[in-house]
Amino acid sequence: MQRMLAIDAGGTSTRAVILDASGTCTGYGRAGAGNPLSAGFEAAAASLAAATAAAARQTSPRPLELSSALIAMAGASTQTSTEPFREVLAGQGLRGDLVLDSDLLAVFFSGTYQLEGYALVAGTGAVAARTVGGELDAVGDGMGWLLGDTGSGYWIGHQVVRAVAAALDGRGPATGLTALLLDSTGIGADLTLRQNGRPEALQRLIHDLYALRPVELSRFAPLAFAADEDAVARGILAEAGASLAATLAAVRDPSVTGPVVLGGSVLRPGSPLADIVESSLTGPEREGGLVRVGDGVVGSAVLALRRAGITVDAEIFHRIEDSLGALREI
Amino acid sequence: MQRMLAIDAGGTSTRAVILDASGTCTGYGRAGAGNPLSAGFEAAAASLAAATAAAARQTSPRPLELSSALIAMAGASTQTSTEPFREVLAGQGLRGDLVLDSDLLAVFFSGTYQLEGYALVAGTGAVAARTVGGELDAVGDGMGWLLGDTGSGYWIGHQVVRAVAAALDGRGPATGLTALLLDSTGIGADLTLRQNGRPEALQRLIHDLYALRPVELSRFAPLAFAADEDAVARGILAEAGASLAATLAAVRDPSVTGPVVLGGSVLRPGSPLADIVESSLTGPEREGGLVRVGDGVVGSAVLALRRAGITVDAEIFHRIEDSLGALREI
Repeated sequence: MQRMLAIDAGGTSTRAVILDASGTCTGYGRAGAGNPLSAGFEAAAASLAAATAAAARQTSPRPLELSSALIAMAGASTQTSTEPFREVLAGQGLRGDLVLDSDLLAVFFSGTYQLEGYALVAGTGAVAARTVGGELDAVGDGMGWLLGDTGSGYWIGHQVVRAVAAALDGRGPATGLTALLLDSTGIGADLTLRQNGRPEALQRLIHDLYALRPVELSRFAPLAFAADEDAVARGILAEAGASLAATLAAVRDPSVTGPVVLGGSVLRPGSPLADIVESSLTGPEREGGLVRVGDGVVGSAVLALRRAGITVDAEIFHRIEDSLGALREI
Repeated sequence: MQRMLAIDAGGTSTRAVILDASGTCTGYGRAGAGNPLSAGFEAAAASLAAATAAAARQTSPRPLELSSALIAMAGASTQTSTEPFREVLAGQGLRGDLVLDSDLLAVFFSGTYQLEGYALVAGTGAVAARTVGGELDAVGDGMGWLLGDTGSGYWIGHQVVRAVAAALDGRGPATGLTALLLDSTGIGADLTLRQNGRPEALQRLIHDLYALRPVELSRFAPLAFAADEDAVARGILAEAGASLAATLAAVRDPSVTGPVVLGGSVLRPGSPLADIVESSLTGPEREGGLVRVGDGVVGSAVLALRRAGITVDAEIFHRIEDSLGALREI
């Protein structure tokens, strides 16, 4: 039997699935960060191997042969060498080809088997794509914390800490975010002690926050959601939602009418930002439907089949969803 | 004769002056980056020594004894150890005490000998201070590129590159900044080539800008000033000016009515931001007068005298200004 490996390698976790040509998934595994750009190659390789090994054990107690592998990851391009990844996965039974593909396409195909439509992903970063003929046709944002990712978890967390810093020295309005941030960082909200013309709590906050990698500021995004009765927090979330809607609008093309697939923790069900994005879609844009997905693992399986020359129709797509869903519940 | 050393140690250059107790400056020297927090201790120490050596040579062909030294630098606090700096300057003839002081006070006292008033400095960073009794009484912003520095050269440069990135993928309005930035980075403005759903020029821009240290984005601030007929550039400058005015407003106290000293390249004479800040001052706030200074070296000399117990009045202040001015013209 032809067994294919599909991996959704993310910045915080990695998911691997083994499936056959009918779309039936026989093994699923999960491990830590799998993107070599953010985690480094050694750590990413260990995650890819661990997730694959777990999926293989679930498929069969005997050693497996895998006829092909596909890894969906951010930053993969046609220039990226696949050889280092092949070597890692050869140890897990890979005998055939390995291809890298876009994590954005994996999110898109986690929501649909159609070849045209849109994806908007907002987790630590934020990016939108227009898909035509099953390939990326246009990409909006996805430029990382310094140049873009507007409306992302990083962006929201960054706005939270800047708003608190401004509130603490009187440049900005007082906000309920201050107590939440000082509490979550363990600094405590005593603002009476001052040093060098500043509250000591602010000095400590500056010290502690510069010790983080910038993208780690995304850990403070939940404070904005927790404080959504606060005017400053509400303003941050409203601007984030409008920015994400603008990112999606930037890749819209009236001639491409497929579904809109939403992914990432910032757009999880119930998030006010998902509502803002949804309500930004006008009538014709809603016709393709709106789908929310938790990750890109279904889509990585769809891509693995498509790259093997198999047309993924509604029947195969739902077989992937159902068989994988059953494995994930174990 | 008692000879004192005063040093204005900045992130890009260092200025040293040797003066006597009357305020007469006898030697002036200049060197590279002198702040150990940004340049590292070895490089900063070399700059302090080089600037001091140049000032000593101008004072006398024979080896000098320096009775005291004061270094004004960003980030200096009462916790900072002075011993490493003493060792460096002992090699330049320092026999007496060394004290560290605030670069903000040095800017303030470069504009006035009065003990009360305000300073607003906007170069790579942005910070405001209220001075009472010759000491810092309140500080606004100055929190660095990640948490503050709103309206600074870094902030303006960051807004420029984000606006161009948004324009290039259709999230933001077209702007004349795009051609200026692609030209200044040597990428060139050919936007017809596309790869992975993006203009190739944008891919290159992302690659090149992430290779910089974040604060280096301040090098693109001049593009906003150059493109001030452009609506996007004008919007960035207007927001920067309003932010700097808010930073100054945050440290205002109606009972403190001294002069406002403006420093830093962003607030240089003729800058539209200096005009915005100036017009933000209401009638009573203008009474103390508005002074623009180029750096903090006069103020470091004032601080050196004050720390030696000498009262700096109008006569001494103008003697420092005049004698230093003559040395700087050589």
